[in-house]
Amino acid sequence: MQAAIITIGDEILIGQVVDTNSAHIAKELNNIGIWVYEITSVQDHTPHIHAALAEAAAKAPIIIVTGGLGPTKDDRTKQAICEYFQDSLLQNNAVLAHVEKLLAQRNATPLLQANKNQALVPSKATVLHNEYGTAPGLWIEKKERVFIFLPGVPYEMKALMEREVLPRLQAMFQRPFILHRTLLTYGMGESAIANRIEQWENQLPPHITLAYLPSPGKVRLRLTAKGSHKEILETQLQEQLQKLQPLLSDITNGLEDDDSLEIRIKKKFTENQKTLAVAESCTGGSIAAKLTAIPGASAYFKGSIVSYTTSVKIAVLKVPAKLIEQYSVVSAAVAESMAKNARELFEADFAIATTGNAGPLKGDSDAEVGTVFIAIATPQGIFSQEFHFKNQREHVIEKAANKAMELLEKEISKF
Amino acid sequence: MQAAIITIGDEILIGQVVDTNSAHIAKELNNIGIWVYEITSVQDHTPHIHAALAEAAAKAPIIIVTGGLGPTKDDRTKQAICEYFQDSLLQNNAVLAHVEKLLAQRNATPLLQANKNQALVPSKATVLHNEYGTAPGLWIEKKERVFIFLPGVPYEMKALMEREVLPRLQAMFQRPFILHRTLLTYGMGESAIANRIEQWENQLPPHITLAYLPSPGKVRLRLTAKGSHKEILETQLQEQLQKLQPLLSDITNGLEDDDSLEIRIKKKFTENQKTLAVAESCTGGSIAAKLTAIPGASAYFKGSIVSYTTSVKIAVLKVPAKLIEQYSVVSAAVAESMAKNARELFEADFAIATTGNAGPLKGDSDAEVGTVFIAIATPQGIFSQEFHFKNQREHVIEKAANKAMELLEKEISKF
Repeated sequence: MQAAIITIGDEILIGQVVDTNSAHIAKELNNIGIWVYEITSVQDHTPHIHAALAEAAAKAPIIIVTGGLGPTKDDRTKQAICEYFQDSLLQNNAVLAHVEKLLAQRNATPLLQANKNQALVPSKATVLHNEYGTAPGLWIEKKERVFIFLPGVPYEMKALMEREVLPRLQAMFQRPFILHRTLLTYGMGESAIANRIEQWENQLPPHITLAYLPSPGKVRLRLTAKGSHKEILETQLQEQLQKLQPLLSDITNGLEDDDSLEIRIKKKFTENQKTLAVAESCTGGSIAAKLTAIPGASAYFKGSIVSYTTSVKIAVLKVPAKLIEQYSVVSAAVAESMAKNARELFEADFAIATTGNAGPLKGDSDAEVGTVFIAIATPQGIFSQEFHFKNQREHVIEKAANKAMELLEKEISKF
Repeated sequence: MQAAIITIGDEILIGQVVDTNSAHIAKELNNIGIWVYEITSVQDHTPHIHAALAEAAAKAPIIIVTGGLGPTKDDRTKQAICEYFQDSLLQNNAVLAHVEKLLAQRNATPLLQANKNQALVPSKATVLHNEYGTAPGLWIEKKERVFIFLPGVPYEMKALMEREVLPRLQAMFQRPFILHRTLLTYGMGESAIANRIEQWENQLPPHITLAYLPSPGKVRLRLTAKGSHKEILETQLQEQLQKLQPLLSDITNGLEDDDSLEIRIKKKFTENQKTLAVAESCTGGSIAAKLTAIPGASAYFKGSIVSYTTSVKIAVLKVPAKLIEQYSVVSAAVAESMAKNARELFEADFAIATTGNAGPLKGDSDAEVGTVFIAIATPQGIFSQEFHFKNQREHVIEKAANKAMELLEKEISKF
């Protein structure tokens, strides 16, 4: 069972926005056993939309389209749909009532013609209720194909996927199961890993495939199994992993949780009723922002100090000026002092601290760009590690923040 | 002059990663006058890669492909290229020397066969030097078409685009100019704006197009002009904007800078030699992370306190407990106290503070989910504003952080 995704909008094709909708839709479809064959981003241009619909329909029985449903002239999808399906627009009174309600909430009265036009839908379409916006989703079946049109605004699209699209697809199609397991490895390149597990890889059955996903410092090995019996697939994946893991025992901590690092940290801290404080220099608030993006973070996360200048490290975080003089601001001693003091200041059980140089220029210290010290203070003591991350600033910040959270996860896992 | 972008990788099609490469490539191509006709993400599967290459070649003379060039078995692009172009792999000694050098730096000796294989390139391809990785870029010309293959690792791809691909495309093709101007409007829906500017929109010449880009609370109006004379296009865009802006004077501050809000804030603070401190509750470090993502932030950004719990607001940020008792932790009084104290604690000229409830549950206060108070402390005094942001947590955090930075930009602009 395959789907094709089409995103409509010049803003994607000129690079003004990144298409995050497709990844969300793809993940949700995968979860219900629908494989995405292809994702295409096309222009807000009627012949192009028609061509994309025809090409997608030739490739997959399910076609999901986002974008182009707005009320303004550059949104051409609804008109393009009518031409493609030889249909015409009809007013839908339920949609009109919803548009009136939404705009009254926004104090946007009287209703403009463009607002009212949002209630015009192709006569052959089933309307999918869009709780958060004025453009309804549309569901059109033709020649064993389902075409689903959704607004491009991410939170409107997400709600429509969850409440309308997925339940309908589940009811309509018999779907196989698609299961993924991802093993996280550290510190070895993908070629070296491939070399080591070659025999194992060669014996994989055809319905189980392996992908190598390298990123700086780690490689994720993703096993994907497709088939019609979930339990059998799970057993087979388990068996393959039991053969694979001993081959990699020195470079892996085991399976990657479906949960992100931030969610795993939240779970472990709340389960253990421990609290956390953060002191950030080069990561500039990224660690705190990542941790607090997770609902419920307030149960364990007490706070963070971003001490971006040396004077703030001394004045606010009480790092001894002497220590900075002696070891420089980018040093193990300063990182450990930051972690220790953050732990005390916030009265937390654990603290993590970062100090380093994210570049592009050298800052308050002589440390090379990419040098980062990460310290962890625990109820048992304080330790730190030195890292050298390569390349651009954003990469150094991202890598340092993730590494700090990884070290923290290891520590809290000991409890 | 048009291009098609193809990204190869099952990780995109299962939603495991968001394709950010395409947006980067599209933006860079636009800057040199090349319009992206379509972006397609396809599977690591030889027939699919062949089909995508053929389809793209039928649509555009420039085809840029990323991904699938790694050394492992799931990376099938190089073999697929040979089949597509009826070519075969040849060892390139310069690439081999580079691979040896890179792996020696990583202490990954002896070289594995898979590493050596990175130096095998299709005999018809021009090699594009990949400074940061072992997979070279490939440039293949065939029947008035240019096919460019780049590794999928973002920082390798970016360096290759900048150093190899763009200069070669500029030298090879006569390109028109594509200019964009974006006007930022606040507080009016896109239908209402469209209604108001209808006459102006109808008189636009065909080579100048208008797009409405709505996002919560604002609509960006993007004017795009294409043509062969840059100066004429610039004058025409200017003339159109001079007609448009008076129609929207009550809802716009003017043109959107090419720079992001964070960059504009950095520029204004550094030009005026002012400094900034931040105190964040519900935004959880996002404001600090956004501001410090910009190189050179340390010239004005002193630091931030993320006071995620009420006790930290009292103990670290010295918000009077009485104030919290009297007004609750989500209140104008507390936001203003946070801003005032952060400004003093960090000895900064300006401070911004946020306190609110990002949801999904009510926290330490009775404030509705989405309620956020933002306070700004300046050398002249302190003020605050109350906001009600809708929908999910990530949306509330993002919106509150952006709004706080917008208010800050207005204040610093007064200096």
